Amino acid sequence: MNYKFNSSVASLQPSAIREILKMTSKPGIISFSAGNPSADAFPSSEIADIASDILRSDPIAALQYSITEGYPPLIEYLKEYMKGKNALSEDDSVVVTSGAQQVMALASKALCDSGDTVVCEDPSFIGSLNSFRAHGGRLRGVDMQPDGMNMETLEDILKSDKRVKFIYTIPNFQNPTGITMSYEKRRRIYELACKYDVIILEDNPYGDIRFEGEDIPPIKSLDTEGRVIYAGSFSKVVSPGMRVGFGVANKELMAKMVVCKQVEDVHTNILSQMIIHRYVTEYDFAGHLSRIREIYRHKAGLMMELADKYLCPDITYNKVQGGLFIWATLPDDVDMTDFCLKLVKNSVAVVPGNAFSVEDNAPSQSFRMNYSTESDENITKGMEIIGETFKACRKL
Amino acid sequence: MNYKFNSSVASLQPSAIREILKMTSKPGIISFSAGNPSADAFPSSEIADIASDILRSDPIAALQYSITEGYPPLIEYLKEYMKGKNALSEDDSVVVTSGAQQVMALASKALCDSGDTVVCEDPSFIGSLNSFRAHGGRLRGVDMQPDGMNMETLEDILKSDKRVKFIYTIPNFQNPTGITMSYEKRRRIYELACKYDVIILEDNPYGDIRFEGEDIPPIKSLDTEGRVIYAGSFSKVVSPGMRVGFGVANKELMAKMVVCKQVEDVHTNILSQMIIHRYVTEYDFAGHLSRIREIYRHKAGLMMELADKYLCPDITYNKVQGGLFIWATLPDDVDMTDFCLKLVKNSVAVVPGNAFSVEDNAPSQSFRMNYSTESDENITKGMEIIGETFKACRKL
Repeated sequence: MNYKFNSSVASLQPSAIREILKMTSKPGIISFSAGNPSADAFPSSEIADIASDILRSDPIAALQYSITEGYPPLIEYLKEYMKGKNALSEDDSVVVTSGAQQVMALASKALCDSGDTVVCEDPSFIGSLNSFRAHGGRLRGVDMQPDGMNMETLEDILKSDKRVKFIYTIPNFQNPTGITMSYEKRRRIYELACKYDVIILEDNPYGDIRFEGEDIPPIKSLDTEGRVIYAGSFSKVVSPGMRVGFGVANKELMAKMVVCKQVEDVHTNILSQMIIHRYVTEYDFAGHLSRIREIYRHKAGLMMELADKYLCPDITYNKVQGGLFIWATLPDDVDMTDFCLKLVKNSVAVVPGNAFSVEDNAPSQSFRMNYSTESDENITKGMEIIGETFKACRKL
Repeated sequence: MNYKFNSSVASLQPSAIREILKMTSKPGIISFSAGNPSADAFPSSEIADIASDILRSDPIAALQYSITEGYPPLIEYLKEYMKGKNALSEDDSVVVTSGAQQVMALASKALCDSGDTVVCEDPSFIGSLNSFRAHGGRLRGVDMQPDGMNMETLEDILKSDKRVKFIYTIPNFQNPTGITMSYEKRRRIYELACKYDVIILEDNPYGDIRFEGEDIPPIKSLDTEGRVIYAGSFSKVVSPGMRVGFGVANKELMAKMVVCKQVEDVHTNILSQMIIHRYVTEYDFAGHLSRIREIYRHKAGLMMELADKYLCPDITYNKVQGGLFIWATLPDDVDMTDFCLKLVKNSVAVVPGNAFSVEDNAPSQSFRMNYSTESDENITKGMEIIGETFKACRKL
């Protein structure tokens, strides 16, 4: 039969990154294209102990239906966590989600009618952008500066577009650019959200893996009007395969997101919620965080050192203080797509920058490199290959 | 701030059952209102062994990101399972979902534009109905007969309504009525779907817990045109808390559903997928199914015996051969809502029938009773209380 799809979904394509990941799963390839945490960064044996204990001492609680909002002790932990950031008001509630991705889906489902505008950083995380698109959102991108979104572009959009529902931002170690929004801009974006009566969706999957510099308070800590939806995740600090994230927002807004979650997946896997709760409250989670920050500090440092050696000054990149990614930019005389394809042929995978563009087919000279997945040896080898491939492209 | 919600979501309320469950969580209440599998029916110690083994021998695979389609060995198992029912064509693909609920969400998201029609049994499972509503579907109900949907009403709707996207049915032990669709009607519904060029969404969470009578082939086994989306679940046969279900549909349609899943939750909890795969392939899953069918045969038999004793002939009910529910109907002179409220006061919870109605506030004289959750002793006590409460209502 001829299928007739939902109009927002019909044009939606599988994420470009995902397709590249498929292409790069062939053996022997050095993958800088993933967003995976380092395999060294999982507290595997602790999780094994906890899972075993829960399933022997309290199996029914871990296997039976549970409530949509999430495992109550984990919610209590998350409330304390948010209070520790001064980012929980009395009118807020916390909900456990199936990964932070589900916060984006629930926020757009609860708020957007078809054709409503979602303002986002350009470039930004493709998974979120596609979620907004799938829920009928029309994207408008804001160019990035070294301290975050360009606030003038943002205000121009807010001033002229009356259908803006929310502004989407990843303020810490943004994916893909690695940029962190300054405190001044966090205050400004909140002011603008109040002035133009829109919501901010603050996505913070990487905030806890800062390995240099000082933490900057989340936008949610400035929120006195119930205007900020905060999305957090255990994917980068415990395990992504467990699919446990959380959302924090005003009670009224969150109640609607919970109704939406109920019709999506009833509740998040309860065993994983119980495991994470036990791990973060009864084990040395702070020590684990220090350890993974050290891993990422080392790997990011290594990749930047090699970028200085093999890529600069022709290829430029943003120095990073956390997160998982380095964003590099080619000079104008080298074709980016061609360069990325040649890299794959030379057994190194990066993600072409236009995979993160708000407009399809927007030109980009940049590419994203991940430093968390590969061994030091492969990072060294891969960066050398990138340098050589660049030289070869230039000669042609 | 004043939130402006998506127009389909704005009017959506939390499921009535869920609210009743909250009310009935007070200690001492006998709950016939849940849809939970019996706590005796979980293979807890096997799951504990498997989880422990996976997390010690292959932790990274269980904790790292995985692919959206699902754990490949589980998909292979599910393909064989569907082939065993003659219900997998070469053009079909199988995807693992976060519970069968997610199949309903993905199907409606992929197919429905706001205002499209979803035809469903009336009454039907509230979680699915709310999922269709949340995705903009307009519901049209078909009255139920002892052998399933009234096919004349169905054809009248298909003939007159040009916006029907799909027909939703639970052909085995329907929730809430317990009715099983005859083979003749399964052939007829498929013929009508072809004639009027619509899709069938066949939801089969209870098919594997038939404890009397003969299996009837799924509608999917008749599907030569890629018109049937099949939804299956491990919730009733292994564990609902693990949130693992699956969808089967034509490749082209499923590819779109996978894109939708990617932006919802990236993939289903991978540890649970691995546990279920190991359990159903390496342990005595067939023996486990026999054992839980025996549990439900016994509990359903007990409840029906007590219904004959305490409720009949004034209160009528549908005999069941599987599933988890008995659907009972009061005589017209007793107010159903009043009766259900009195029952709660007398410490027995059932679900008022109008919670499953397609039209809000449609009148109903029925109520749903679950027999899988409570002990034999409580089933006996609860049925006696229902009989007494009915007599008391009648006297007033």
